[in-house]
Amino acid sequence: VLANRVIERKRDGAELDEAELREFLDGFLSERVSVPQMSAFLMAVLFRGMSRRELETLLSVMIESGAVLDLSSVPGAKVDKHSTGGVGDKVSLALAPLVAELGVPVPMMSGRGLGHTGGTLDKLESIPGFRIDLDLRRFREVLTSVGCAMIGQTAEIAPLDRELYALRSATGTVPSIPLIAASIMSKKLAEDLDGLVLDVKMGRGAFLADDQRAVALARTMVALGTARGVPTVAVLTAMDEPLGRTAGNALEVVEAIQCLRGEGPEDLAEVTAALAGHMLELGGKASSAAEGERLASQALAQGQALDRFVRLIEAQGGDPSVVDHPERLPRARHAGDVFSSEAGVVQGIDPLALGWGVVELGGGRTGRSDPIDPSVGFEWQVKRGDSVHPGDVIGRVHARTPAQLERGRTILAQAVSLADAVPPPALPVVRRVIRAGDPTID
Amino acid sequence: VLANRVIERKRDGAELDEAELREFLDGFLSERVSVPQMSAFLMAVLFRGMSRRELETLLSVMIESGAVLDLSSVPGAKVDKHSTGGVGDKVSLALAPLVAELGVPVPMMSGRGLGHTGGTLDKLESIPGFRIDLDLRRFREVLTSVGCAMIGQTAEIAPLDRELYALRSATGTVPSIPLIAASIMSKKLAEDLDGLVLDVKMGRGAFLADDQRAVALARTMVALGTARGVPTVAVLTAMDEPLGRTAGNALEVVEAIQCLRGEGPEDLAEVTAALAGHMLELGGKASSAAEGERLASQALAQGQALDRFVRLIEAQGGDPSVVDHPERLPRARHAGDVFSSEAGVVQGIDPLALGWGVVELGGGRTGRSDPIDPSVGFEWQVKRGDSVHPGDVIGRVHARTPAQLERGRTILAQAVSLADAVPPPALPVVRRVIRAGDPTID
Repeated sequence: VLANRVIERKRDGAELDEAELREFLDGFLSERVSVPQMSAFLMAVLFRGMSRRELETLLSVMIESGAVLDLSSVPGAKVDKHSTGGVGDKVSLALAPLVAELGVPVPMMSGRGLGHTGGTLDKLESIPGFRIDLDLRRFREVLTSVGCAMIGQTAEIAPLDRELYALRSATGTVPSIPLIAASIMSKKLAEDLDGLVLDVKMGRGAFLADDQRAVALARTMVALGTARGVPTVAVLTAMDEPLGRTAGNALEVVEAIQCLRGEGPEDLAEVTAALAGHMLELGGKASSAAEGERLASQALAQGQALDRFVRLIEAQGGDPSVVDHPERLPRARHAGDVFSSEAGVVQGIDPLALGWGVVELGGGRTGRSDPIDPSVGFEWQVKRGDSVHPGDVIGRVHARTPAQLERGRTILAQAVSLADAVPPPALPVVRRVIRAGDPTID
Repeated sequence: VLANRVIERKRDGAELDEAELREFLDGFLSERVSVPQMSAFLMAVLFRGMSRRELETLLSVMIESGAVLDLSSVPGAKVDKHSTGGVGDKVSLALAPLVAELGVPVPMMSGRGLGHTGGTLDKLESIPGFRIDLDLRRFREVLTSVGCAMIGQTAEIAPLDRELYALRSATGTVPSIPLIAASIMSKKLAEDLDGLVLDVKMGRGAFLADDQRAVALARTMVALGTARGVPTVAVLTAMDEPLGRTAGNALEVVEAIQCLRGEGPEDLAEVTAALAGHMLELGGKASSAAEGERLASQALAQGQALDRFVRLIEAQGGDPSVVDHPERLPRARHAGDVFSSEAGVVQGIDPLALGWGVVELGGGRTGRSDPIDPSVGFEWQVKRGDSVHPGDVIGRVHARTPAQLERGRTILAQAVSLADAVPPPALPVVRRVIRAGDPTID
């Protein structure tokens, strides 16, 4: 009866009281509200949205459904970053050691690849021996000694979110901004943070390809974090093109190491430094995001944080020698260059084609528990605006079989679009910043 | 993957192909599509609606999910009636013998009470011995010998509808016009009919209290029946006031018998004759609905069909002596008159108050399997526009306990609204007729 009333009120556009929404959500956890009822409710939310008050209630119940970290024993203001996910997005691997190096502890809980987007955990696990399943005691120890630690979401954190997430995947109710915002924030706000930076991707390769929806998601998450007393900043960054020059787990680890040496691609360094700038400001180690970004750029250029990454790998059981010997990372049996058959100017590289391409080569998952091959993927050495001639090498494919190598060549060649005209200059990689003080936050 | 695609396409407002919708529905029957997925789909349908083509597919799969009657051995054009449900609606009990008497066989499958509306099966079962669970062989025999037969929906008819209906009740997805239309029509079109008359109630006591929605439902059902080759007519009738002068199962049987004697209340006779008129036209026993209505009114006034009802009761195992001895029907232990405490003109009688009142007295169900007490209910002897004085008897309550009798008195007194002004004349009981030829059918 309660369940029916709540579903019907949401369906009809009413705002739910805190008490009835709590009772409904608690009822789901205790199996008094059925899975079909929750499924219908989630679809009604997709159509009707949620008020800020409803959303704060949902978020609270999600957080309270599980454990909340206690990092009070770790000195300093802890700041984490979350990304909504992109293709070639290896930012976290460079960012965590970089920010730690500059004095702000980074307790990072990351996710796995999902759909066409890669996941930090999958990338880390391509380092031989690296453990992403530290218990919380060990997580705190690594965080204290190294200044950063990187693990997966533990089962104790926000179990309601995990159940709802699985249900949303099955029932076509993923793309709801309030539900996405609550899901992301429930995990991050259980981390006992003093600040949070959100990298919300915009553009054709983003999880939310519609710019307005990406902005709405950013605003919603900033408002939720702020309401719970965690200073939160969202940085909207470009995902029209894949980030950097690689997509695929081990390949991206190599590129992140290059970035930490000051030798990575420009767009990757730019996003990394911009996010670091905000983290340093929130962590009290820079007077502004701009000053933080300057510090971060300088540290990257000088390779200052590379040793921090070595220490992180060591502390989490991995083989730190991969930093100097990338050939010790998993290598695909078959690799080959991709040549352009035409002349033209690169108009862009399709991030969706490459993201799904990695999945097709076996480097991502289509189901929750698919094993993945860390070695496969794509490298590309052309960027938007580059001129290519027939026979030029445009990139390289790493695959498990000759047939997959050929398939990978086709995918990469088709992902690079050529034309005679020079494309208009790309928009800046950092598009927009949304903070709690932002007057546009409703 | 199929299930996700179908849910997402419906969610996003696309029209589903016949093949994918069939596969989705068949998948639900074979448990490849999960109950949560179907729940989310139903909610998406509630928001997005269904195209006529989608609806015809849903209806086909529902009908094909079960058995379809074969009444070819019964001579004549078979015509049935369905009502969307009202309070005091005992029309079927008089209508089936009336139409049979005038030469059109009526194979009637009815339902039980639901919410505030009563059900024909519950009323019939208040007749001692009456069996509504005849097997199909016996159903055909009764239909052939008596000209009408009245049973419940058998388990073999449209099992997909039954499953979806249970799910819709649990998930807040009942009030969707396409889903309601498909549910009703799947059962009726499995009856092997040559014509169907739909009594779609309008007004505050109707299942769909919004007039426009009632009209939309009528149009949808007429179009669905016509598309499947069954001439279908919808008669929109008033349910602003309860029908007749009684609500409660045994009380309504008595009133239906009075109606068959030509001694029933005017509104009941009017609706019965109007529906009979269309059934006689569809069954080829009248050249027009108006002529059919004239024949029916005359037969009612002369008590011509009463013996047909006696034969029906006998054929279905009931005690036919109740027709002459209504005291042999179940009688409540406690009964008492209700007096007006004020003076005024009756503005109306609230059908919802009386419908839920019957449920509260134990004569209806709140859950699917609640036992009901056929003896309880209300009689009222005032109608809209009547003047009453303090102390006048306005009606009578039949209840199981003295406490329930008192509660029933309050319910009935509150259901009758009094004021000084004379209310505007009531709209005609038959509001509108919708047929396949109607240009407003889309």
